[in-house]
Amino acid sequence: MMRINNNSEPGTHYDASSIRERRATIFFSIHDKVGALDECLRALKTAGVSMTRIESRPSKSVEPGYDFFVEIDAHTREVVIGVIDEIKRVKVVRDVRVISSLEEEAPVANAVPWFPRKVSDLDTFSEKVLEMGEELSSDHPGAKDPVYRRRRLEIVQMAKTYRTGQPLPRIEYTEQERDTWRQVYTRLREMYPRYACREFLHVFPLLEQNCGYGPDDIPQIDDISKFLKDCTGFTLRPVMGLLTPRDFLNSLAFRVFHSTQYIRHHSDPYYTPEPDCCHELLGHVPLFADPNFAELAQEIGLASLGASDEDIEKLATIFWFTAEFGLCREGGDVRAYGAGLLSSFGELEYALTEKPEHRSFDPSHASTQKYPITEYQPIYFVADSFRDATSKLREFNSTMRRPFQVRYNPYTQSVEVLDTKDKVQHFARSIRNEMQLLASALEQI
Amino acid sequence: MMRINNNSEPGTHYDASSIRERRATIFFSIHDKVGALDECLRALKTAGVSMTRIESRPSKSVEPGYDFFVEIDAHTREVVIGVIDEIKRVKVVRDVRVISSLEEEAPVANAVPWFPRKVSDLDTFSEKVLEMGEELSSDHPGAKDPVYRRRRLEIVQMAKTYRTGQPLPRIEYTEQERDTWRQVYTRLREMYPRYACREFLHVFPLLEQNCGYGPDDIPQIDDISKFLKDCTGFTLRPVMGLLTPRDFLNSLAFRVFHSTQYIRHHSDPYYTPEPDCCHELLGHVPLFADPNFAELAQEIGLASLGASDEDIEKLATIFWFTAEFGLCREGGDVRAYGAGLLSSFGELEYALTEKPEHRSFDPSHASTQKYPITEYQPIYFVADSFRDATSKLREFNSTMRRPFQVRYNPYTQSVEVLDTKDKVQHFARSIRNEMQLLASALEQI
Amino acid sequence: MMRINNNSEPGTHYDASSIRERRATIFFSIHDKVGALDECLRALKTAGVSMTRIESRPSKSVEPGYDFFVEIDAHTREVVIGVIDEIKRVKVVRDVRVISSLEEEAPVANAVPWFPRKVSDLDTFSEKVLEMGEELSSDHPGAKDPVYRRRRLEIVQMAKTYRTGQPLPRIEYTEQERDTWRQVYTRLREMYPRYACREFLHVFPLLEQNCGYGPDDIPQIDDISKFLKDCTGFTLRPVMGLLTPRDFLNSLAFRVFHSTQYIRHHSDPYYTPEPDCCHELLGHVPLFADPNFAELAQEIGLASLGASDEDIEKLATIFWFTAEFGLCREGGDVRAYGAGLLSSFGELEYALTEKPEHRSFDPSHASTQKYPITEYQPIYFVADSFRDATSKLREFNSTMRRPFQVRYNPYTQSVEVLDTKDKVQHFARSIRNEMQLLASALEQI
Amino acid sequence: MMRINNNSEPGTHYDASSIRERRATIFFSIHDKVGALDECLRALKTAGVSMTRIESRPSKSVEPGYDFFVEIDAHTREVVIGVIDEIKRVKVVRDVRVISSLEEEAPVANAVPWFPRKVSDLDTFSEKVLEMGEELSSDHPGAKDPVYRRRRLEIVQMAKTYRTGQPLPRIEYTEQERDTWRQVYTRLREMYPRYACREFLHVFPLLEQNCGYGPDDIPQIDDISKFLKDCTGFTLRPVMGLLTPRDFLNSLAFRVFHSTQYIRHHSDPYYTPEPDCCHELLGHVPLFADPNFAELAQEIGLASLGASDEDIEKLATIFWFTAEFGLCREGGDVRAYGAGLLSSFGELEYALTEKPEHRSFDPSHASTQKYPITEYQPIYFVADSFRDATSKLREFNSTMRRPFQVRYNPYTQSVEVLDTKDKVQHFARSIRNEMQLLASALEQI
Repeated sequence: MMRINNNSEPGTHYDASSIRERRATIFFSIHDKVGALDECLRALKTAGVSMTRIESRPSKSVEPGYDFFVEIDAHTREVVIGVIDEIKRVKVVRDVRVISSLEEEAPVANAVPWFPRKVSDLDTFSEKVLEMGEELSSDHPGAKDPVYRRRRLEIVQMAKTYRTGQPLPRIEYTEQERDTWRQVYTRLREMYPRYACREFLHVFPLLEQNCGYGPDDIPQIDDISKFLKDCTGFTLRPVMGLLTPRDFLNSLAFRVFHSTQYIRHHSDPYYTPEPDCCHELLGHVPLFADPNFAELAQEIGLASLGASDEDIEKLATIFWFTAEFGLCREGGDVRAYGAGLLSSFGELEYALTEKPEHRSFDPSHASTQKYPITEYQPIYFVADSFRDATSKLREFNSTMRRPFQVRYNPYTQSVEVLDTKDKVQHFARSIRNEMQLLASALEQI
Repeated sequence: MMRINNNSEPGTHYDASSIRERRATIFFSIHDKVGALDECLRALKTAGVSMTRIESRPSKSVEPGYDFFVEIDAHTREVVIGVIDEIKRVKVVRDVRVISSLEEEAPVANAVPWFPRKVSDLDTFSEKVLEMGEELSSDHPGAKDPVYRRRRLEIVQMAKTYRTGQPLPRIEYTEQERDTWRQVYTRLREMYPRYACREFLHVFPLLEQNCGYGPDDIPQIDDISKFLKDCTGFTLRPVMGLLTPRDFLNSLAFRVFHSTQYIRHHSDPYYTPEPDCCHELLGHVPLFADPNFAELAQEIGLASLGASDEDIEKLATIFWFTAEFGLCREGGDVRAYGAGLLSSFGELEYALTEKPEHRSFDPSHASTQKYPITEYQPIYFVADSFRDATSKLREFNSTMRRPFQVRYNPYTQSVEVLDTKDKVQHFARSIRNEMQLLASALEQI
Repeated sequence: MMRINNNSEPGTHYDASSIRERRATIFFSIHDKVGALDECLRALKTAGVSMTRIESRPSKSVEPGYDFFVEIDAHTREVVIGVIDEIKRVKVVRDVRVISSLEEEAPVANAVPWFPRKVSDLDTFSEKVLEMGEELSSDHPGAKDPVYRRRRLEIVQMAKTYRTGQPLPRIEYTEQERDTWRQVYTRLREMYPRYACREFLHVFPLLEQNCGYGPDDIPQIDDISKFLKDCTGFTLRPVMGLLTPRDFLNSLAFRVFHSTQYIRHHSDPYYTPEPDCCHELLGHVPLFADPNFAELAQEIGLASLGASDEDIEKLATIFWFTAEFGLCREGGDVRAYGAGLLSSFGELEYALTEKPEHRSFDPSHASTQKYPITEYQPIYFVADSFRDATSKLREFNSTMRRPFQVRYNPYTQSVEVLDTKDKVQHFARSIRNEMQLLASALEQI
Repeated sequence: MMRINNNSEPGTHYDASSIRERRATIFFSIHDKVGALDECLRALKTAGVSMTRIESRPSKSVEPGYDFFVEIDAHTREVVIGVIDEIKRVKVVRDVRVISSLEEEAPVANAVPWFPRKVSDLDTFSEKVLEMGEELSSDHPGAKDPVYRRRRLEIVQMAKTYRTGQPLPRIEYTEQERDTWRQVYTRLREMYPRYACREFLHVFPLLEQNCGYGPDDIPQIDDISKFLKDCTGFTLRPVMGLLTPRDFLNSLAFRVFHSTQYIRHHSDPYYTPEPDCCHELLGHVPLFADPNFAELAQEIGLASLGASDEDIEKLATIFWFTAEFGLCREGGDVRAYGAGLLSSFGELEYALTEKPEHRSFDPSHASTQKYPITEYQPIYFVADSFRDATSKLREFNSTMRRPFQVRYNPYTQSVEVLDTKDKVQHFARSIRNEMQLLASALEQI
């Protein structure tokens, strides 16, 4: 879940507590010379800083070489700068970048904002959340319940320390938590056949059979993530709370969805001021099993990589009007597919009445439409289909004029910037091969 | 490692011991009707058979529906048939198949041989190996060493019970095993700079830095697999011993390589009658980190899916003359990239002399070339480059006239047969999108 | 030039005089049997009707066969029906269609409107014009000048009898006609540097050097057509007067532009109620030499083939707001590229002031915008570039949902309907070959 | 028809008589500056040389500009050099080339050989033929018949002065000539059903119906060319006699076939030492109406543009073993499609017996196979299909490693060298558009 906020400055309300402990990843690339790898390793080891990860990889850039990823416990900016200086001293080094939130503190004018290149880069988001990461805001129903706050913090800590490749945390939910879930689940489950879109209804029973969905217990994101991987390649990862729109959208490029694991306060099962597992698991999860929706979500994610702040805001608004509050046409009918609707029985009912305005989904209009956060939406956008919405979105994205194009490599779960002849050539060969395959397939059906 | 044997019948020498305990996976597909999913589940539960896995998924076929994968402990063919009868009784069921080796016992004339569709289907290979799975042949140097045999069986059992998604087994190697490794490693490592191809030499130091390669201990396939995933998406999985050529090649379609974890007998560190971790880790692993070689290997794998027995033999022979004993041109020089060479210092030296015959790699010739298994090769094929070899292989594969084309989906790690208009349309849209991206990228570089 | 008329019914005001003499082309297709061709020919010859053309060709449909095109002097509908009956009697005949305007008199509900498939099918438009073909309307400045009317009729007769493949008519213009031309030419030529778009200004001097453009004489469409063919493949053909929007747009699919050859009445050199050679040669011709504009024009043409009446109206309106009255952005500036502007010094000046409204070109809006015909436009649409406009148009066309797609074959100057597997396969192979070429080209630049 | 001669040096035996009068075309390109066009024109006019053509066109190169084509009566090399010097004096000029055979007299080492870029460049071949252009060799049956020689010269003169765009010469054949034709036609026509391939037999009756094929008169290439244009876009142009292999093959890139119009000597109707209209019209023409053969022929042509002398020889040999002496499989049968066979009843019969050797068509083998010119072939190559042959040829061509790729533009009948980013971008956009169309077509069939 991301923090959607089209009134305030993006990226300003970091949870101060998280900065104190966060790590930085330093990336650098070296020429392919005999002994070069060892030389670098030695330099790092003599830097006198605690390193939690050192990875060397074949370079994906044109000129043969090696890439290094080094994760350090960087309490201060100075430590990071010190290590970088150490690295720069090695002669074969040709490119150094910091992969972490630190660099955002001193953005360079006109520079392309940093973005994750490999799925493990998403680890840098783990400790970096907006308000309501480890602390609750005062208007949260659980703000004054020390038991709730302790429990929430316990779950949030697991998300904070989670790293790519580890098994997803499994939570043993309490009786009280399960009871809250039961109330939400039962009421919504009964509404879906009348309000939810076809794709949602197709997937929901599968979640019941395969992932433990049901009134009696809260499903585990580990089970769900495996199921989604089979369906569309989407996976879940735990998150402390609200991410910045940029971080949240960026992760969609990797078909990764950040999901909270705690549940709302039991005092009011039908209300939550922040995303919780009811919202994620009931609202968001089902559609990530649909190939066309998965494509739509990834398309938003890919467009967000390195996008300008204004474009991030537009894309976040599009996410709001699709994945959170989207409606879609089904024959002569209109149904809901947005998670904000499918996890809120009040707005779900209201949205499909004639009270709010229904507009045809058009990304250029939707992207600049203002909206309220704390009340029912006055305007909803209605898509013809996920495929049609994706096609319109792709057309819209092409107007953004980001100075480069990116391509996702699902084999290595990494993002490739198509900025050199070499990469474009490789891409062209790959399309040629696919075209060859398509032509052959057409001969045979 | 697969059993290459171009003199005997493929697929006849199963290890009898493994049949006794193996499982069967039954696949069936049902129409999308209200209550249908539950009805199926009930039918399965009343079948009175022990089921180790029940998965239901959104159907990937044209007509909306659901797919079921049910794994049963099937000691006899009759049990399987019984369950299938039970399933067929459910009205909504539209398609039933057995995903396991059992069906191969009664092959249908002219039928397309069974092949794995999703990465977890590779689990069916786990208990199904040719000779030297749990038992050793009498000419094995360790055949009469009960300690060696017990240790080997211990490691092999881990491979036998390994299932997709589980963490890869980590082996604590003994002092004696590490000593055998040290002798092999030290001698080969020293030869590589003179004999191995550029790609091999580029990757090898990375394995030393990231995966524990070195003279002192045997690297863990878990570490290697993670590293390969980052480089090309290839992963390793443990195997008891020799797979049939079909099973072995099929797994390459998923960028999965079956790797043994035991080591040769300490009495003769420079000889082994079966693949062992020295062969896999030193010979095969490094090149799976190279994108072009990875593509070549997967191309062989994709061509093998559902191929006729004769085509399997041709592809296995091509694998032999490339991945096992391939040479390649480098400037005016010739170097080795085949694992059979890079894990055998005797043949590595011999192959690059003028004693054997060097021919230009041409798949149509290589695929029918006879070769000895127990002595040095009289003929080697020299590729211009992995890319060139892949291109030639693709051309060769197109002459095989398999009645369908397959496409690999790396997001879901599954294989799609392009046999319906629906799937071809989807593929065409995907190429269109990529072509759109390529055109945009070309505008910007 | 077409008759643009978004207030009246399309296709209703035929020039009655032309119907009396017009010809019909009958198309039929036969199976590939020995002797079948001769049998058909005999049947035609015994039909007792005067035939001006009999063509037999290899069939372009899937099943092998032959196509016949027979042109008859068809004074009445009965004659045509008689010939068709005769043809149907031949056993091998499998498909009969009338290629002419006659069939439009009895349109079938929901049928795809007839459209030209080969460039010579455009001959059916020759005698079929809206008002002001051979006769002038009463408000024409030359309506009461018998000399002018005789001269105009003389030129129009050449267009009426022109057939594909013949040399284009060359007109010896009179002193008076050349004088009218001089006045228009001189005044506009002097304005262009300030008002016309970059592409127009790039081409204009070439027309002066190669096609006889200049104040002294009216250029010959024969010279212009050859020049355009070299530049973009566009060609001109003479026309009597206003075509229906459908016929006019259809011809653009073949990169053929219908051009009148007579000139306005000398009494008012700066006014004409109908298109004349000043409008065509000064307004339209230059941009047809620009590859991007040519693509835009052909795209409109291809979309119009077999389109519904409503879609024809939309496309005609898009043509109006682009090729006739289009503006485009050039750096911070706005320039004119529409022929209606570039051939009218009054509106050319007005359009680029702040008096009218300038909107960004968007086909879905432009296509339904009402506009006046007899006065200056209150609204102009401004394109970013021809390429951008074409891309938007393509997206717009895809929303039209015509039940088939067409592809133009510039080798045979014919249109292929992509409605069979066979044709789609052939197209896919062609794209595969091009993709192969592109990948190779990318390796080499 | 080309002179196939794999024993002698290519391009050395020019007909001396033709050099004396030939013209040279000078190409130059200028920057897009105000007044530049006029300045160039003035320079040309003051050069004091007789110019038969001056064309200026929009430049097809990246940087905006103009291209000039100037044809001069160049009796000596000095005249050409003089004009070039004059042109170079103009400041805006950026590139000057001579488009004619003259430049071949002083070839630059390692330079890409000159090749035609636009269809009218083929005019430079008109006056440039090998032996037997205007003069006959002594072994020609008509060498001592002054009447025959005068008649042949008369026909040859029309070919010599023919220029692109002119109507094709129509010959009024004499009674004697028609008699020779009748004997050849009658005998071959009767053999075709047993020996000719399916595609040939499909087209032949159409030539009878549409192009005047029959025993009574020699068909006119004008009628044939129009027919072929409709079928595949191929056209004919008259030629004096044997062209060099390079010139002949180059023209196929434009789908242009050079056809002689005279007929063999009446004294021996079944023999001719040079190509004549019997060979062209009966042997070659029918297959140019077949889309797959047309593609094969053009593919050879495109590969020949700018190819090295060795590659030209290979391609000419491939042409020999396909278009001249090719056989093809038809079910279990073998049939002839080569013109050398289909115009010679003796070899046609012999080729399909078991006397000669039949090999599977493989361009890399065929291209280096030696062959006799004056007797029956000992070896024939059998293609599976034209499409298969084209696919193999394309693969073969990719091994030629010409340092650039070319693309034919059928709209403008010109060849584009894909050597700049700009052109590759344009090509990529074009493929993207086609891919878009293909995806849409696939949705609808």
